[in-house]
Amino acid sequence: MDKDALLDYEYPDFDPVPKKINIEIIPPCDPTADDRLYHICISAVSLVVMVILAVLARRTKVGSQQKGLAGLLSPVNFLDHTQHKGLAVAVFGVLLCKLCGMVISPNPLPFTTETENKQNWMILGTFFYPALYYPLLACGTLHNKVGYVLGSLLSWTHFGVLVWQKIECPKTPQIHKYYLLFSSLPQIACLAFLSFQYPLLLFKGLKGAEKNNASEDLNSSYYNDYVKKLLKRKKHIKISSETPKLPHRIMDAVKSYIYTPEEAFRFPLKLAISGVVSFITLYQVGLLLIVAVVPTLQIARMGVDEDIANVLAGFRIMLSPDKQEVVRIHTRVLCEHNGLVTEHLFCMNCFNCSPRMRLFCRSNLKGLYRGDIYNVYNCQRSIRASRPALVCWMGYTSFTAAHICIGMIVQTMVFFLCLLIAVFLIIMPILHGQNLFLFQLLPFWLMILLAVLIQHITSRFCFIKRVAGTRDLDNRGNLFLLTYLLFPVNVLIGVLLAVWRMIITALFNIVHMGRMDISLLNRNVEAFDPAYRCYAHYLKIEVSQSHPVMKAFCGMLLLSAGQNNDVVQRSRDAEEGIQLVQQEKKHLKVPSAKRARGHWQLLYTLVNNPSVVGTRKHFQQRVATESFVNGSLKGSSKKEAEAAACN
Amino acid sequence: MDKDALLDYEYPDFDPVPKKINIEIIPPCDPTADDRLYHICISAVSLVVMVILAVLARRTKVGSQQKGLAGLLSPVNFLDHTQHKGLAVAVFGVLLCKLCGMVISPNPLPFTTETENKQNWMILGTFFYPALYYPLLACGTLHNKVGYVLGSLLSWTHFGVLVWQKIECPKTPQIHKYYLLFSSLPQIACLAFLSFQYPLLLFKGLKGAEKNNASEDLNSSYYNDYVKKLLKRKKHIKISSETPKLPHRIMDAVKSYIYTPEEAFRFPLKLAISGVVSFITLYQVGLLLIVAVVPTLQIARMGVDEDIANVLAGFRIMLSPDKQEVVRIHTRVLCEHNGLVTEHLFCMNCFNCSPRMRLFCRSNLKGLYRGDIYNVYNCQRSIRASRPALVCWMGYTSFTAAHICIGMIVQTMVFFLCLLIAVFLIIMPILHGQNLFLFQLLPFWLMILLAVLIQHITSRFCFIKRVAGTRDLDNRGNLFLLTYLLFPVNVLIGVLLAVWRMIITALFNIVHMGRMDISLLNRNVEAFDPAYRCYAHYLKIEVSQSHPVMKAFCGMLLLSAGQNNDVVQRSRDAEEGIQLVQQEKKHLKVPSAKRARGHWQLLYTLVNNPSVVGTRKHFQQRVATESFVNGSLKGSSKKEAEAAACN
Repeated sequence: MDKDALLDYEYPDFDPVPKKINIEIIPPCDPTADDRLYHICISAVSLVVMVILAVLARRTKVGSQQKGLAGLLSPVNFLDHTQHKGLAVAVFGVLLCKLCGMVISPNPLPFTTETENKQNWMILGTFFYPALYYPLLACGTLHNKVGYVLGSLLSWTHFGVLVWQKIECPKTPQIHKYYLLFSSLPQIACLAFLSFQYPLLLFKGLKGAEKNNASEDLNSSYYNDYVKKLLKRKKHIKISSETPKLPHRIMDAVKSYIYTPEEAFRFPLKLAISGVVSFITLYQVGLLLIVAVVPTLQIARMGVDEDIANVLAGFRIMLSPDKQEVVRIHTRVLCEHNGLVTEHLFCMNCFNCSPRMRLFCRSNLKGLYRGDIYNVYNCQRSIRASRPALVCWMGYTSFTAAHICIGMIVQTMVFFLCLLIAVFLIIMPILHGQNLFLFQLLPFWLMILLAVLIQHITSRFCFIKRVAGTRDLDNRGNLFLLTYLLFPVNVLIGVLLAVWRMIITALFNIVHMGRMDISLLNRNVEAFDPAYRCYAHYLKIEVSQSHPVMKAFCGMLLLSAGQNNDVVQRSRDAEEGIQLVQQEKKHLKVPSAKRARGHWQLLYTLVNNPSVVGTRKHFQQRVATESFVNGSLKGSSKKEAEAAACN
Repeated sequence: MDKDALLDYEYPDFDPVPKKINIEIIPPCDPTADDRLYHICISAVSLVVMVILAVLARRTKVGSQQKGLAGLLSPVNFLDHTQHKGLAVAVFGVLLCKLCGMVISPNPLPFTTETENKQNWMILGTFFYPALYYPLLACGTLHNKVGYVLGSLLSWTHFGVLVWQKIECPKTPQIHKYYLLFSSLPQIACLAFLSFQYPLLLFKGLKGAEKNNASEDLNSSYYNDYVKKLLKRKKHIKISSETPKLPHRIMDAVKSYIYTPEEAFRFPLKLAISGVVSFITLYQVGLLLIVAVVPTLQIARMGVDEDIANVLAGFRIMLSPDKQEVVRIHTRVLCEHNGLVTEHLFCMNCFNCSPRMRLFCRSNLKGLYRGDIYNVYNCQRSIRASRPALVCWMGYTSFTAAHICIGMIVQTMVFFLCLLIAVFLIIMPILHGQNLFLFQLLPFWLMILLAVLIQHITSRFCFIKRVAGTRDLDNRGNLFLLTYLLFPVNVLIGVLLAVWRMIITALFNIVHMGRMDISLLNRNVEAFDPAYRCYAHYLKIEVSQSHPVMKAFCGMLLLSAGQNNDVVQRSRDAEEGIQLVQQEKKHLKVPSAKRARGHWQLLYTLVNNPSVVGTRKHFQQRVATESFVNGSLKGSSKKEAEAAACN
């Protein structure tokens, strides 16, 4: 048996004495585009770009568009479902890559070469880089050809210099020779996207395809589509009383891992950014772990000598009388460990990256739109803006990245240690016929198994009586007797259960450490989990400020306000959702049958979206219209807050 | 500063070089009542007692009472709320103490002195001891004077021999000289209770105070009282819209830790047993930990030498240039540790013993009686007997003991390690001005603090507008800008949050490891926690088989069946609860006003106890009455199961 076990482990090309790895000495490399000079130049260029944009904004403000300087200062509307998400997502990706670089590198900002004050430079860097990449966002805000040209030039510069540096100096002495190259790949991808997107926008702008996009959010057909979808008569869903069969259940389980885009639902911008940011974090941390762990293991593999045999002897494990043999065995195991760890990292990546989180978010958001507050929060909460909610909303994207990072590190450490312990102290000794502690307890295991079997079998056949499809207790006397007699054995079974509970709880929490949308605590104290609390607050703000039905309603109002001002143009999309609002307003002119239908449809909408009810109560058209024209939804969200307070 | 810190630590009577502890050598002690001889004798006596009881049971079966041999074979009715719980609880206590002794002692059964086959002997022991103590339970079953006399004699024998042995041999060489003495205290207490209880029962029996107790469960006024309580008009509770003030909230929090007995609610027998079993487990494990840990620490204290200074130097901690000084410091710390660990154990005891668990159970049971299934289980389940539920019900008491045992061990280990790490690597070095790693990061902490403050203050004063009592977002542009600029800082804040999340999750799970009524998992996967699953199943069986309203209903039926058989005796308690059932049955003879009132009261009861509704549907008096007379509630619980299936 020993021989066979060894044969299983034999590598075909295994070399008993591993060769020394030639540690390559990489000379420090100075790229032609010196990082310091480049940063100074690009900062100046960015400043100039911003000044040009500001002048441009002042000029356009005089014209028809209402954005101007204010728009330039807030280029991202995080509460918008409809805007093109690419620019913002790419800039956030670049920023995150820079942050990762800053934490790893000895001098976070390239303006100095001294490594003493790393902390202060890093603090400066956390504020410098957002400012540096700000123009990349701002250029797209004005929807202006000059802006697009500037944006293209800026992104080309960033992209070009970065690629040039990486081509000149692919190897660096830090951590691993190719680490910095791989680490900058997501940044290059994001910059490439920007360099491609700005020219595309410019091209569209020249063709004149982009008009009236200033208030694109409310004019978009998305919200109307959403309302139309709601108003459609639903198919009668047959609820079968039978439990679904195994293939169906497997299919359902697989489906719950695959994100299928749904018609008439779009993710909020902040969630889209979080998704990309999570992906980049996963990549960076995974890269760092692989790069840091694998060479350490290789060195450890070379360092394995006869001491390992002595250490294991301390655990009363003697794999072989020949110490050289022990060394060979463990070198092999470490070798396999390399593979295992890498594999594990990939699995975790896939799991965390899995669209399950997005699916979960979507169902939560849709639930909250419907007013299913209890299902999502497990208690009745008012959905309205508050100070803690706003703070959590601001930090949500960042917290996602941080949690995934810490989660991955903890996972890797814990799983690596567990594997090490399992392999060295349990599997290997058992394969070599040592330390058969668990097998020596065979009678004990048999007793436990027997006791469990007896309880299950007697429960099934003696103590439960089935009469006419119902179940009832039977033979109560014997049941009580058995309960009494098996009390001591059940205590021993309980110990095993408690250990299993410990393992499963720890495993669940460690695996889900990186997910903010799942509370790791019991349902009664969920809110004490800081990550889940943040997620819950984030959803609050998102739902209270950008409910699609509310936005559709606001869109209609804007349109009707335009009609009142003798703008005759009728909306192409004036169908159900639109009609019912208009009919309600002008009900004096509408025949009563149509009015009644409109009312019914309105009622239907409201029943399907209880959280919108508040937006109707005490509605004052004037206040609302005025605030909408200012480019935001202040008025209506105030109504919503009122409604939430009423609930 | 160093001097002051040292002064704080100075013990008034501190001796720099601890004396050697004189390790007392305890000679093995052979009590006059040899354990082996005693066990053989008592087994024989128990057998004789069982035979006498069996003969007695056969004879009484011929008479009026219906129990006989069947009753002797199931002396405990675990589904009964009203029976005197003392006997069963005490016997379970004795059994648990024996199990603890078996695990610790080198020869689990005293029939042999060889320690080789400990495992097999232990397996035998787990079945031998329940059988040995069985007569102590069975003697009380027959409600017969001879039974009480036998019970008294048996319990006196057990008690007397145990106390005699402990007085003769208080010191033993095992673990700690007084360990076995302290460990047997709960056993002595339980046996003393039995020795007192049996004579008391005998005395009551002689005075004739105990008649008609054979079917005491259904005849008891408890269930009627419960129904009456339900039918009482409730006081209108004023719901104040104001949030409660701080003193009120503190009072409420304190109240939630104090168990106040409630009128018209009694715990099921199984929960009472679990409570006592938990207490004994806590005592035994606590004792074992203190006895095992304290001397180890004392030895460690003596063993601290200059090596500790070298070890700490490995962590770059140099408390003092003089190594002797380092030794003195750490001897002191270990000394304090003794105190800390002991204190911790007591705190944990108090926490776990706290009546919070009982309170929780009570509210869950009452909720289920009312039909609040969703609140308790977080999903809609059918409350009826099933195989897994029955298996969990059988093991519940044992599992409680096992979980508390494992929970305490894990808690002690984790807290001890954490304290050790905190004291040696963090607190001590800081007190001695070393390893000020966290203080060197002061600018970093300031930045984090500042960023958090900025977000909170701007959220409160700039971004949230309060108009007429409602809250709305304001300055959206600046909010978006701030969100973008603070992205990198928030990632760093998120890392701290993730670490905090890890700590709080681990802490919560470790502290609640011993409680089965709390799931340690997220609310969507609660059922994967084996302990919570067992608890949920236990509640199912308990509620489906012993709902007080159902039992009251069955009591009425028995009574009316007796009346039909021309037994004229009317129940003293024939008030609301009783009347309404009788009125319903004999509605032809009752005036219509009374009938209507009865119907309304019935409806009221049913509305308050939706889970009883099933017991009425398709009711067949004959079947039910027959099965009740057989001493159990088969018929009615069948109806309930049907109802549950309908729901």
